[in-house]
Amino acid sequence: MAWNSPKVGILGGGQLGRMLTESANRLNIEVHVLDAANAPAKQISAHDNHTIGHFNDQESVQELAKTCDVVTAEIEHVNTYALEAVASQVKIEPSWQSIRIIQNKYDQKKHLSKYDIPMADYRELVENTPEELAKVGEYLGYPMMLKSKTLAYDGRGNYPVKTKEDIPDALEALKDRPLYAEKWAHFKMELAVMVVKTKDSVLSYPTVETVQEDSICKLVYAPARNVSDAINKKAQELARNAVAAFEGKGVFGVEMFLLEDDSILLCEIASRVHNSGHYTIEGCGLSQFDAHMRAILDLPIPPKSLELRQPSIMLNIIGGATSDSHLRVAEHALSIPNASIHLYSKGAARPGRKMGHITVTGATMYEAETDIQPLIDLVDNIRAERSDIKTAAVKSSAAKPTPTVGVIMGSDSDLKTLVPGLKLLRDYFGIDPEVDITSAHRTPDYMAEYASKAASRGIKVIIAAAGGAAHLPGMAAAHTALPVIGVPVKGSALDGVDSLYSIVQMPRGVPVATVGINNSINAALLAVRILGSYEPTLQRKVEEYAASAKSENLDIKGTKIKEIGWEKYFAQM
Amino acid sequence: MAWNSPKVGILGGGQLGRMLTESANRLNIEVHVLDAANAPAKQISAHDNHTIGHFNDQESVQELAKTCDVVTAEIEHVNTYALEAVASQVKIEPSWQSIRIIQNKYDQKKHLSKYDIPMADYRELVENTPEELAKVGEYLGYPMMLKSKTLAYDGRGNYPVKTKEDIPDALEALKDRPLYAEKWAHFKMELAVMVVKTKDSVLSYPTVETVQEDSICKLVYAPARNVSDAINKKAQELARNAVAAFEGKGVFGVEMFLLEDDSILLCEIASRVHNSGHYTIEGCGLSQFDAHMRAILDLPIPPKSLELRQPSIMLNIIGGATSDSHLRVAEHALSIPNASIHLYSKGAARPGRKMGHITVTGATMYEAETDIQPLIDLVDNIRAERSDIKTAAVKSSAAKPTPTVGVIMGSDSDLKTLVPGLKLLRDYFGIDPEVDITSAHRTPDYMAEYASKAASRGIKVIIAAAGGAAHLPGMAAAHTALPVIGVPVKGSALDGVDSLYSIVQMPRGVPVATVGINNSINAALLAVRILGSYEPTLQRKVEEYAASAKSENLDIKGTKIKEIGWEKYFAQM
Repeated sequence: MAWNSPKVGILGGGQLGRMLTESANRLNIEVHVLDAANAPAKQISAHDNHTIGHFNDQESVQELAKTCDVVTAEIEHVNTYALEAVASQVKIEPSWQSIRIIQNKYDQKKHLSKYDIPMADYRELVENTPEELAKVGEYLGYPMMLKSKTLAYDGRGNYPVKTKEDIPDALEALKDRPLYAEKWAHFKMELAVMVVKTKDSVLSYPTVETVQEDSICKLVYAPARNVSDAINKKAQELARNAVAAFEGKGVFGVEMFLLEDDSILLCEIASRVHNSGHYTIEGCGLSQFDAHMRAILDLPIPPKSLELRQPSIMLNIIGGATSDSHLRVAEHALSIPNASIHLYSKGAARPGRKMGHITVTGATMYEAETDIQPLIDLVDNIRAERSDIKTAAVKSSAAKPTPTVGVIMGSDSDLKTLVPGLKLLRDYFGIDPEVDITSAHRTPDYMAEYASKAASRGIKVIIAAAGGAAHLPGMAAAHTALPVIGVPVKGSALDGVDSLYSIVQMPRGVPVATVGINNSINAALLAVRILGSYEPTLQRKVEEYAASAKSENLDIKGTKIKEIGWEKYFAQM
Repeated sequence: MAWNSPKVGILGGGQLGRMLTESANRLNIEVHVLDAANAPAKQISAHDNHTIGHFNDQESVQELAKTCDVVTAEIEHVNTYALEAVASQVKIEPSWQSIRIIQNKYDQKKHLSKYDIPMADYRELVENTPEELAKVGEYLGYPMMLKSKTLAYDGRGNYPVKTKEDIPDALEALKDRPLYAEKWAHFKMELAVMVVKTKDSVLSYPTVETVQEDSICKLVYAPARNVSDAINKKAQELARNAVAAFEGKGVFGVEMFLLEDDSILLCEIASRVHNSGHYTIEGCGLSQFDAHMRAILDLPIPPKSLELRQPSIMLNIIGGATSDSHLRVAEHALSIPNASIHLYSKGAARPGRKMGHITVTGATMYEAETDIQPLIDLVDNIRAERSDIKTAAVKSSAAKPTPTVGVIMGSDSDLKTLVPGLKLLRDYFGIDPEVDITSAHRTPDYMAEYASKAASRGIKVIIAAAGGAAHLPGMAAAHTALPVIGVPVKGSALDGVDSLYSIVQMPRGVPVATVGINNSINAALLAVRILGSYEPTLQRKVEEYAASAKSENLDIKGTKIKEIGWEKYFAQM
């Protein structure tokens, strides 16, 4: 039986260790934490088998190892020589070798190069002299990033070298550290994927979008917004390949850059659960903490449990100007719908310290974005009170909601027919559709590309209008698995019957939901009804729309014709 | 600020206290538990401020009260006189008066009668003699339930009196207890609603279906299956009204009977978090444990956070024949997709003891039902090994999935046109639609009722077929906010153009998604595309369907005509 009561040792009992302990508690797995006496993880695990000490202290590691079946770490900056020394007595997951390579970012890059993982170009510094760095600058170009090989995290140990004039300051800031320099990645978005390495497979969570501020994680959007399915999958694959290059079991965090040309570069790997995976607690069937515990104990992980249950946004709660500034965020979050609050019980806050996080889920990303916005504003205000930072807040409010309705027309002459439906969508239902012109005959390739990629962009229903030999709706339907609504547009001949037949009489196998000739209002309403089947708020709005049409007919027009008589009514029409 | 570090005392540290502690931990609220030294709740709350003792011991309650701001209870069978004695020193939520009334089931019923809450009729016993009970039996009828007023839970303290011959055994079984008898409720389903009473409002979670076995909760389905929206709402309202009759704050569990005529009777109230609300941990934005903590501390609770995020099924893990039989359920659950496992760390199991629970979520109830079925079978097998019970397992596998596609036709003569679509839905996509005959002209009222209630039954899309003056699709669309797909059926005249125009040329405001004449295949595919926009598994199946059509055309037919030539090909057609 799997429940042989394994004891799991964790180096470090901060928030990551605490959330690992939450997961372990639910499976009645005892965790033994190596950290100070009242560390966050120890607070929720009451027994006498913890070790008091530091995760870099060899004796403490040895003491911990004696009490455990498996040892893991909540941080990669551990003493891997202490781990190596106990490797014959206790399992270490992931392996101390992997942690040793990963904790040195230069070694990490060198290792990954062997596995053809795409990364920004880089160069080692040996002498750390201005002359050497200038030479590297000539090779990599400016700006470039000067980095410490070791003990670098949350922005510490990095120095941006914008021109060669910055070289002396950069070397002064990072003096006495082992250094390398990295070519600047001009990215349009930062992505992250949590990867789970088990005894026999490498699994991944969805691709998320991360927003960094002051060199630490501010926000995580799951899934990444406005990113195609292809990029989402490519990032997951890159992340799995990168993690597969390391030995051992457990969860790894993989951070990546998405460049303007949609290529992806690996930024760095963490050999542990990661801030960009906190959303999984509410967002997925198994959290990254559940998955890590299961992976290191060889317990099963159903891949479906790593899929996203609902769009989720994670916001970090960061220490502010005073020791309790950050609690204003937690307090406000109590009133935010579907907001889960996680405070780490780390005691007094320092400016910039991670004190907790909040995850907001929603039926749609737009709903979650709308619900969390007041909290982001508050976080920006609290940050503005800090005297230790001068830069403006990273604007995270600007993201436009992913359109769920795509509207296409064969020619701009069809636009006037579509306008009433577009206005109804926007003004009554608050749905801003993606509108495009693509002709089945004049731009057949673009039409095919548009339709085949629509679902992966988040589109849930397509409205297509066309006249005459109206092929657009049917051709779009042939290139997508989404429901396509066809609007026959009345042309100069045949009263639109030509368009109607061209749209409705599709062969078996490729359906088009056809509405009446020129009736874009009904196309819009049908689109909303389709969305409303899964989004209760929209379904209620469709009911309200019908009720107001009913009252207009019964109460207003009906009352009037009875009051003034049919003859006067007709005269006024 | 809300975070004035309140200390919350809990009488009882079993699984309910433990899950309350999980919630408190995430808000950094310290809980002080009154229970034995290593009680489940204390194991996840490491500090020295717990009290060792029993929740019925007056001195222990007094000791606990000294250390807290608010005291609450995980069980209603507490010593309310001990609570009354400390009421001037500490807040007690809900009030000791409410707990005192609720813990005596006869007093609870008497109290609720004053508030017009519908309940099964009942009679108090004063002398507990066979003569008195026989007289009550004449009044209430047989079968009836003989009940202990106090200390009754999980079936203990109840005795079914099927005929008057059972009277001596019933009185013997419950001798020396204060008794009353209750009229038998012939219910078709047991429902439950968790209610949250705050300082200024009474909120409710959705209505769930509970399945009892051996007089304890076995399964909870959220939402209740095959229950109309109207009943769901009526049950929530009844539950809120019942809880409003009591003083104090916190979560209350309300159990109800749904009778054959769709009326609802209150069964009983618990003044605490409840087994039928465990699904809320994964199922809702805030769990019942989160909500209870917030309610007793006057922290905000957004009503939207009590709505269901996804359909959820909760299965209890019950002690079996040996002390570790139940762990086989937890072990198997590790491999079930989207299954969250909660073990309570209660030590050795006894047969029938609640040792943990599992919640499975799904995009649809059908998905969750399919995923959890192997676990239910295993639970039934483990129960069958017990020597302390003789009865067969309650069959919980029989529930039919809620249909998501409704197919209606104006006349059974349309059925042959629909058959290809129905077969495609069932055989290729695994969707079993609800099929009915309802005519806009011959059964206008039934048609209207069918369409207007379809959404609340769980239908997401309607397919309607009709010929001639084909009003059914449009009339159905006028009575629902769901998308309606219209199939024009070719009649004896006009080649089906009459049906097509009648269906497609709807006035602005009421859309019908029209497909080609007689094309039920496309109607079925369109329905699946609509569902697929929100159910990825179905969308993938639509893509597979298109791919197989493509390969049939390209690989099979195309290869053949090139191989054998057009003339021979035509001859074989």
